[in-house]
Amino acid sequence: MEQSTNNFLHREDGSKPSLELSMTARVLNIIRSEREVSRADIARILDYSRSAAVQHVERLLSYGLIREVGVAASTGGRRARVLALNGNTGYIAGVDLGATSIDVAITNLAEETLSHTSDEADVSEGPERCLRQARDMIKSALDNAHIPGEQLLAIGIGVPGPVEFKTGRPVAPPIMPGWDGYPVREYFASDFACPVYVDNDVNVMALGEQWAGLGRGIENFLFVKVGTGIGCGIVCHGQLYRGADGCAGDIGHIQVDDQNVICRCGNVGCLEAVAAAPAWVRIAHEAANSSTLIADHLARRATLTAEDVSAYAERGDHACMEIIRHSGRCIGHTLAGLVNFFNPSLIVIGGGVSRTGDVWLASIRQEIYRRSLPLGSRNLLIQRSLLRDRAGVVGAVAFAIQQLFSEAELCRLLQQIAQRGNVIQMSESS
Amino acid sequence: MEQSTNNFLHREDGSKPSLELSMTARVLNIIRSEREVSRADIARILDYSRSAAVQHVERLLSYGLIREVGVAASTGGRRARVLALNGNTGYIAGVDLGATSIDVAITNLAEETLSHTSDEADVSEGPERCLRQARDMIKSALDNAHIPGEQLLAIGIGVPGPVEFKTGRPVAPPIMPGWDGYPVREYFASDFACPVYVDNDVNVMALGEQWAGLGRGIENFLFVKVGTGIGCGIVCHGQLYRGADGCAGDIGHIQVDDQNVICRCGNVGCLEAVAAAPAWVRIAHEAANSSTLIADHLARRATLTAEDVSAYAERGDHACMEIIRHSGRCIGHTLAGLVNFFNPSLIVIGGGVSRTGDVWLASIRQEIYRRSLPLGSRNLLIQRSLLRDRAGVVGAVAFAIQQLFSEAELCRLLQQIAQRGNVIQMSESS
Repeated sequence: MEQSTNNFLHREDGSKPSLELSMTARVLNIIRSEREVSRADIARILDYSRSAAVQHVERLLSYGLIREVGVAASTGGRRARVLALNGNTGYIAGVDLGATSIDVAITNLAEETLSHTSDEADVSEGPERCLRQARDMIKSALDNAHIPGEQLLAIGIGVPGPVEFKTGRPVAPPIMPGWDGYPVREYFASDFACPVYVDNDVNVMALGEQWAGLGRGIENFLFVKVGTGIGCGIVCHGQLYRGADGCAGDIGHIQVDDQNVICRCGNVGCLEAVAAAPAWVRIAHEAANSSTLIADHLARRATLTAEDVSAYAERGDHACMEIIRHSGRCIGHTLAGLVNFFNPSLIVIGGGVSRTGDVWLASIRQEIYRRSLPLGSRNLLIQRSLLRDRAGVVGAVAFAIQQLFSEAELCRLLQQIAQRGNVIQMSESS
Repeated sequence: MEQSTNNFLHREDGSKPSLELSMTARVLNIIRSEREVSRADIARILDYSRSAAVQHVERLLSYGLIREVGVAASTGGRRARVLALNGNTGYIAGVDLGATSIDVAITNLAEETLSHTSDEADVSEGPERCLRQARDMIKSALDNAHIPGEQLLAIGIGVPGPVEFKTGRPVAPPIMPGWDGYPVREYFASDFACPVYVDNDVNVMALGEQWAGLGRGIENFLFVKVGTGIGCGIVCHGQLYRGADGCAGDIGHIQVDDQNVICRCGNVGCLEAVAAAPAWVRIAHEAANSSTLIADHLARRATLTAEDVSAYAERGDHACMEIIRHSGRCIGHTLAGLVNFFNPSLIVIGGGVSRTGDVWLASIRQEIYRRSLPLGSRNLLIQRSLLRDRAGVVGAVAFAIQQLFSEAELCRLLQQIAQRGNVIQMSESS
């Protein structure tokens, strides 16, 4: 059986529709990632023939997923029409599930934020309660923005613990009692028809920083979150790196100190146990004798927080300043080792504690430069997250869109749209 | 200007020859990586039309780069003919430049070893002397195997220090005086017409282990070399990871110990300073009082080596056993942190010291399991290199072939072959 070259879509295994769909999906992905492109650009980037590119573009136009947004600058001949994603074809929900709060953002496909709400919550109350709260927040946000549920294309969720990426289930998360193995995705299935993607909060923040923060266009960087715990998102060769079991970046349990501070993981001297927010509070209690500000505070109030320690340090309290410096030095010491190992070009510091004054950041930087090899740190930037408190929720949206635009998921979505509106038949007979 | 679909090779920018070449290059790469494939497989894997696949296969057959090696099992129709790389079209030289030795291997394109020689050398004698020795070793190996110089397609070299990958020049290598910035590639240019690729020895070993050792098919693993120094090659998402400045994996200078041992890098307590071969010798000298075997040795001989310490430990000497255990614990402690951070599925231990008995490996493993998170180590394998002393030279060959089979390099090679033999014209007019 001799084959002719004039059917570009031909495949040996006869799976013509699925190849066609995946070619359309690739075109859509290029339009998204390049933001504005012509049909000729698409043909060139994907190595498609001009007429194949045109055909897939027509399909996406007929689905309403893309639109023409103008013409390109003239290059001599007829000016090319420029295509872009039609952001309002569908919507994304991003959920940042923190230890003590839930943030929900609704964006369109172009990641323009339509709504952002934040509520207090307590992750230790277990999954049903927290997820119900998150679900209700998504529903009201959609209602308020007059978005019908079926236009929600994906939900991305970041949770404060390790997640088995394949199934979206938390795995033995230390600060999330009751969540071990809980089917988070399935919980949302009865209320939303769209796919739900779940990952560790720090991974999600790293994706947010890559999409909309300091990590744009950076091939290799670390996002370090310091709050109740300490964790790290790793971007390697431009992609989020999750490791063999999905738990890469768990730097909070690297040993940094010989003092006998027992960590919640059972080991002693873990970074988290000596440098995260709870450690600040613990050391501050121990230092009450040598700090009138701390002693006064404890006499007046039942609780002392890491924010209080930070505020007293700003007011010049020596004990609080030393707490902050010690935390910075321990974090910097651990990161120095990781700079030798990973040689990133950027370290982004985020999480609740990162709002602390410059003394803390300076201590981190000082220790990194003191302890890492000059060759590995000569071009290294160490910066606070540009997204600050929004890193989690921006990241959850970026994560959902990234997953949705994977080829397999896009094909599924295109198939759905085609079946819903009979659009494939219309465009194919035209 | 309307385009037709029947010219699969058409591109908007009119760069037809280079696109054709790169398509041929991709076909060659598939035949290499899959080892045995049919024309139909190639069309399917690359999304080429059947006739395009056939055309590129014909070209590669006419160049002698591939050959038909049989027919596939019947799937009902006519049985497909199976293609494979023609290993003897060209040859590769791999050079492992160690601190005290040079190894040279000559293989064919299918990585079948034709010759392997090893000579004593001293890297501290500077680049001219060492590179001349390496060059002479390559030349005699080619002569002995009756391979004309122009059939040498690439040279891969691993050197014991950091290398700027783009230029192939060593960067401030601590144990290689006189090598800083030395143009290694250019040194070979007058004797060999082929490209020369240079990288750090540990990176090269990791590639060797990936190609022919325990790392086959493993997406994320570490190759840890322990010898005069300690370094680590990182494979991430299936690719060697070099970091932002090409110095990723420099784990020998992570701080592991508070004792005031000064490292050659100027810092104190670096892993290398307390756990690599020279540290064994230093500690053994200090322990001469408590070990009759060491004391006897020093009375009889001028030098004491890490191998001696290892041998005495095998004979039950407590001081030597403790030296080995301490080294293992320090290495394990550092690797435990890296397991938390990187969550690899495999750690391969190689380098000269890795020949030491099982006590050393057991200490490494024990400390990794003690100090890393259970989730990250539950599927982790920690093994000695399968390639042992050959890791460097096997890796240098694998590295050269990997670089040679990059699309840009393959296009260059194909162009060269075409020009040399006028083969392109012949095959196009047929």
